[in-house]
Amino acid sequence: MKIETVLSPTLFHQIENIENKVVVVIDILRATSTITTILHNGASAVIPVKEEQTAKDYKVQGFLVGGEREGQTIEGFDFGNSPFQYKPEIVKDKEIVLTTTNGTKCIEMSNNAYQVVIGSFLNLDTVVEHTIYLNKDIVLFCAGWKDKVNLEDSLFAGAVACSFTGEELDDSTLLCMDAYRAAQDDLFKALQNSSHFQRLARKGVTKDIAYCCETNVIDSVGILKDGKIILA
Amino acid sequence: MKIETVLSPTLFHQIENIENKVVVVIDILRATSTITTILHNGASAVIPVKEEQTAKDYKVQGFLVGGEREGQTIEGFDFGNSPFQYKPEIVKDKEIVLTTTNGTKCIEMSNNAYQVVIGSFLNLDTVVEHTIYLNKDIVLFCAGWKDKVNLEDSLFAGAVACSFTGEELDDSTLLCMDAYRAAQDDLFKALQNSSHFQRLARKGVTKDIAYCCETNVIDSVGILKDGKIILA
Repeated sequence: MKIETVLSPTLFHQIENIENKVVVVIDILRATSTITTILHNGASAVIPVKEEQTAKDYKVQGFLVGGEREGQTIEGFDFGNSPFQYKPEIVKDKEIVLTTTNGTKCIEMSNNAYQVVIGSFLNLDTVVEHTIYLNKDIVLFCAGWKDKVNLEDSLFAGAVACSFTGEELDDSTLLCMDAYRAAQDDLFKALQNSSHFQRLARKGVTKDIAYCCETNVIDSVGILKDGKIILA
Repeated sequence: MKIETVLSPTLFHQIENIENKVVVVIDILRATSTITTILHNGASAVIPVKEEQTAKDYKVQGFLVGGEREGQTIEGFDFGNSPFQYKPEIVKDKEIVLTTTNGTKCIEMSNNAYQVVIGSFLNLDTVVEHTIYLNKDIVLFCAGWKDKVNLEDSLFAGAVACSFTGEELDDSTLLCMDAYRAAQDDLFKALQNSSHFQRLARKGVTKDIAYCCETNVIDSVGILKDGKIILA
């Protein structure tokens, strides 16, 4: 089995034969952590949409809609991108529409993969178990920030890859694994100098970061099916 | 001072204001290690050229010409890309023309930078001292392999960044620093799973790799000036 890591959406075109590969989409702060939480809190599905206007159209139809641009909640939406806003009593049995700066774009880019899996530290082991079960080559697709490489997504790619043995690994994966080994004892601390940490900290949401760094507190995993993210 | 790392030529366009920045071009296996060695061995300059035909034109004019494509010496050239071929008694006081798969392309891409510096583990500390002396923002430009991220260039970027304190660092730089911290005690071992190591090992040039992993055995540094790389 082969594991490749895409460190930025700009590099996604380098992956060949995507239809036979499992793509793990990674946007740790905060889209994929939030999606994982929404499903864990009982939503029946998350509908990822790339365009703000598409989300607004869903809102008119009565859907609950979440979204951010540049880390800020979109005006008139029910939620932003903080996992804490999607409480079980609000999202249970609902389909939630979500649009974010980076994460939902990558989900759309990956939609002809064998399967799209939503990755987060919150459910790291379940993500790994599910991808092992699928028994296909794996692409760890880091959403980054506006096409730039970011640290938290790269470290998560390293965490996933470190859970495998004997796979064929590309150099981006090896780089992330080395970095994860150096950072794993205190992820929160490792992220303190990262651009996204500082961006979110300025907005006063360090508790979101602390939550998104928690590992293995959720034992379910979201996958994309017919345009909706549902539990595997 | 700011340090940014470009993990692949495909991401180079993300760097702004390049004319005010020092670009350290990194192609550890083997172009920038070889250039550093050629200058150390007494050549008066290395002329980097992107196209094979340009190098051939120089050859006709009587220049010594080195070059590889896909890691193989170009037919009719005086040298390949192995640092061991450029012996002092051959290169002393000569201008050597060099064309390589990845490294010379990046030198050309960077040519409107404030200054282009040639980076290698062989002269790590001298590269750092020289960039500190220039007192400009720094771009660590990894040549990679055919636009893909590679491990050895990324680790070198981490090594350079780890030599600074108090700089503003982008996430690619933080990633490389974490990885370098995990790998630095045995670089050669860290590289054994890398794509380029295996590619070169298949060609029987592991001694080149071992040499290119040697740290601080050369105390000079090459810079680009008027299209030629000369000692700073």
